[in-house]
Amino acid sequence: MPHTIAEIAQALGLRAEGALDLAITHAAEPAQAGRDALAMAMDPKYAAGLAQGQAQAAILWDGADWQALGLKAAVFAPRPRWAMAGISELLDPGYDFGAGIHPQSFIHPSARVADGACIGPFTSIGARAVIGPNARIAPNVTVAEDVVIGADVILHAGARIGARVRIGDRFIGQPNCVVGGCGFSFVTPEPSGAEDVRASLSGERQVRAQKWHRIQSLGAVRIGDDVELGANSSIDRGTIRDTVIGSGTKIDSVCQIGHNVQMGEDCMMCGMAGVAGSARIGNRVLLAGKVAVNDNIFVGDDAIVGGASRVFTNVPAGRAVLGDPATKLETQLEIRKIIRRLPRLVANVAKLQDAVFGPDRKG
Amino acid sequence: MPHTIAEIAQALGLRAEGALDLAITHAAEPAQAGRDALAMAMDPKYAAGLAQGQAQAAILWDGADWQALGLKAAVFAPRPRWAMAGISELLDPGYDFGAGIHPQSFIHPSARVADGACIGPFTSIGARAVIGPNARIAPNVTVAEDVVIGADVILHAGARIGARVRIGDRFIGQPNCVVGGCGFSFVTPEPSGAEDVRASLSGERQVRAQKWHRIQSLGAVRIGDDVELGANSSIDRGTIRDTVIGSGTKIDSVCQIGHNVQMGEDCMMCGMAGVAGSARIGNRVLLAGKVAVNDNIFVGDDAIVGGASRVFTNVPAGRAVLGDPATKLETQLEIRKIIRRLPRLVANVAKLQDAVFGPDRKG
Amino acid sequence: MPHTIAEIAQALGLRAEGALDLAITHAAEPAQAGRDALAMAMDPKYAAGLAQGQAQAAILWDGADWQALGLKAAVFAPRPRWAMAGISELLDPGYDFGAGIHPQSFIHPSARVADGACIGPFTSIGARAVIGPNARIAPNVTVAEDVVIGADVILHAGARIGARVRIGDRFIGQPNCVVGGCGFSFVTPEPSGAEDVRASLSGERQVRAQKWHRIQSLGAVRIGDDVELGANSSIDRGTIRDTVIGSGTKIDSVCQIGHNVQMGEDCMMCGMAGVAGSARIGNRVLLAGKVAVNDNIFVGDDAIVGGASRVFTNVPAGRAVLGDPATKLETQLEIRKIIRRLPRLVANVAKLQDAVFGPDRKG
Repeated sequence: MPHTIAEIAQALGLRAEGALDLAITHAAEPAQAGRDALAMAMDPKYAAGLAQGQAQAAILWDGADWQALGLKAAVFAPRPRWAMAGISELLDPGYDFGAGIHPQSFIHPSARVADGACIGPFTSIGARAVIGPNARIAPNVTVAEDVVIGADVILHAGARIGARVRIGDRFIGQPNCVVGGCGFSFVTPEPSGAEDVRASLSGERQVRAQKWHRIQSLGAVRIGDDVELGANSSIDRGTIRDTVIGSGTKIDSVCQIGHNVQMGEDCMMCGMAGVAGSARIGNRVLLAGKVAVNDNIFVGDDAIVGGASRVFTNVPAGRAVLGDPATKLETQLEIRKIIRRLPRLVANVAKLQDAVFGPDRKG
Repeated sequence: MPHTIAEIAQALGLRAEGALDLAITHAAEPAQAGRDALAMAMDPKYAAGLAQGQAQAAILWDGADWQALGLKAAVFAPRPRWAMAGISELLDPGYDFGAGIHPQSFIHPSARVADGACIGPFTSIGARAVIGPNARIAPNVTVAEDVVIGADVILHAGARIGARVRIGDRFIGQPNCVVGGCGFSFVTPEPSGAEDVRASLSGERQVRAQKWHRIQSLGAVRIGDDVELGANSSIDRGTIRDTVIGSGTKIDSVCQIGHNVQMGEDCMMCGMAGVAGSARIGNRVLLAGKVAVNDNIFVGDDAIVGGASRVFTNVPAGRAVLGDPATKLETQLEIRKIIRRLPRLVANVAKLQDAVFGPDRKG
Repeated sequence: MPHTIAEIAQALGLRAEGALDLAITHAAEPAQAGRDALAMAMDPKYAAGLAQGQAQAAILWDGADWQALGLKAAVFAPRPRWAMAGISELLDPGYDFGAGIHPQSFIHPSARVADGACIGPFTSIGARAVIGPNARIAPNVTVAEDVVIGADVILHAGARIGARVRIGDRFIGQPNCVVGGCGFSFVTPEPSGAEDVRASLSGERQVRAQKWHRIQSLGAVRIGDDVELGANSSIDRGTIRDTVIGSGTKIDSVCQIGHNVQMGEDCMMCGMAGVAGSARIGNRVLLAGKVAVNDNIFVGDDAIVGGASRVFTNVPAGRAVLGDPATKLETQLEIRKIIRRLPRLVANVAKLQDAVFGPDRKG
């Protein structure tokens, strides 16, 4: 669907110049943009790309000289990523969830699906499940018994929502995500080797036979509003209480959240990050890609955990941490610098030993 | 279903005191517990929670003064997590797998499903598959051709069991788990760059074109009794022999086990851990969360691999290891302490250089 | 199906000796091989296994004395893994995708599925999807609207191919893999805490409320020929342009590839590796197991990233890197050696301090 530059500028609340009635049909990278495209060129580094492509209109960085760039019209974006949110929303083709409830789906007679739902083939809705208005549910999805989901949910293909899970409004479940697998909680009749090591912090312990008995998950998962869960990511149910994910929290693909975790609001958890059982994560916490958070610790509000860090101890509110094991960001950056220079340090110590003890007395 | 305190104590083999005929309907955390709940308060730290909640009965730590805590009845748990296994089993509401074989499922005419099976809608059972008594199989599950599964299996929604896989009794497959994807095994006609680097342990090598040819997986996966596989976890099939998982081994969510791996009995593999191809893992091994085990190495019986460790070399039986690369636990703890103090070490060396060589002769 | 030794040698282009008309029915490890098996004994270390087993024929290392090993026939493999590719192809029993299009599948009337397709029960093919000749699609697969897939595709159970994704010929999707989940791309109206930290590289920043707004994924995923994607692995769609995977690239299980990633040809990405958004990966790059590649960086052609490395900065073409953070392989090996010896270094510095400053003047 074509949009004029004027429409786009108005929708995004941005300033535009030039041929405001020029119409574009889609967005494109500057170098690949054809004459019908709106080129995404929000940084001076894209100027060369604009020259390669054929765009007549672009979203530009603040202060760009659109006429010198050979354009007929331009929209100016002082905060590029924010403009990207607006323009991608405007131009999003969306997904096709079919019309209504597909005859090859299964909806348990006791389930209640509110008006406006699209439900794809081979999707199963369990007993007593309740799904709010305007649900868009892809093919091959499973919603188990006694699940409660709010309005405007999107469940992509292969999403699994386990028994008794409760989810707020506007949840987006990416393909093959899982909410409500059982918690990974086992116990041996006698203390296990791992318990010995945790207690002693040494490798010394008695080796003995151990059979694992299952602790059942009596809790489920409770998710707030505006949460998103990535492809092939998993949130386990709680043991006694529910595992909780606060409103506004976004979770990327191939992530794992263990049983009993309490995660706050507006967090961001990037790809392949994991939070182990019973950890507590505050509000607005950022866990970067591949991060690991140990079980039973807490990460305070507004903490930022850098890429691939392993967090073994509590992180105070507001702190940025990095590394394995994670430390304060500044400390870790200093440590990394020293480690890179260790060969020089070793050489310097050897020189000192030569000077102080003579070549024969290094040891 | 309500249970009296006397019933609970008897079922768990624990001592109880107070109003033994008091009935509870479910378990709860102390602070959230209502009058019908059994509060889980197995540690003195929960005393405050009991005061906040309204529980009349609780499971308490050994020696607790239940009357002073305002309770009418109490059960005493000398080993709290073991009591948790018992109480969670007693109170588990379980999952609804429907009744019998759903008309919207597909069972190949040559498959044999033993009596007592519940099979959900959109579940497919392949040719010649054999499934033991009392199977509980959720919707949207795939069991491929020639699979053999024992008694009392639970397969949650989206579980995939690949061709020729053999599984013992009481297997639990969490949502979207995969048993029997193809092994990741490829070869170039001429030695590849990676082979050169492995051989020389240096970055020096000849760069050349390389096309990957597939080595087919002629083996499958063989799993013992009482094994559990977590949500979105994957076990690949073997090349010539089967990949093997021993009885009693528990595998958490978002884990990966490569082709040809031989894993022993009663192991525990926590969230996001991975074992690369052809590694051998002994019995009763603990792999903590996010652990990586290199291909073609072995980890001996009763070894414990600490959180997020990367194991590049063999681990002897009974050893506790930690770190990246993993070392003996005690060594790693010492190394980590030294690393935290590296800035001080650097400063001390600088002072020595000043003293020995004078400020101009640092180099 | 039995094969004679002569047939096998001819199919593999290898030299054989002994009873060339001897027939074998399958391949086996030497120690487990029965009289009908071809023992895989391509290295002298398997000689003992041959003695344990009952094989009459084997594939042996170059120069092996097959008669002394008690065999009746032998094939010689100068490059064992290459021979394995050939023999596994020859003996592969393959998978049963049924015959034709299963009546319990759903194919949108506007989809076009070319001749020769096998499509399993509960598989859904969306509107306007185009699938090339000889597709073999398992049960419980989802192909969304406007997908285009080439010839000879294999999609295992639970594979999800998202809207508008384009895939070349001979693609293999393992169970529960996902192509085309939404990109993980969000923005706050004002700069977020993470942006502050990235800008300042320090933990100092202003803490403030932040709500995440979604940047829609207007792009899809474009995959070349001969690509394989592992079980429970995920490739996200791009924001403006497509995420791209080049021909010949093989991706293992439980991997993740973020939005906008451009990955070249003939790469190999091992289990649990992840590439964050907008990273560019060259041709013939090897990412070993558990590797993490940061967002927005590039890894040059023929680079080799060693096991569990975390790549935070660009990697030049041809380089082998290792570690967290990743450095040149040789540098990392030296650093690791020094780290193992840090306790001795600390002791040596203490001795120097004693000698230079006396026991009282360490600080």
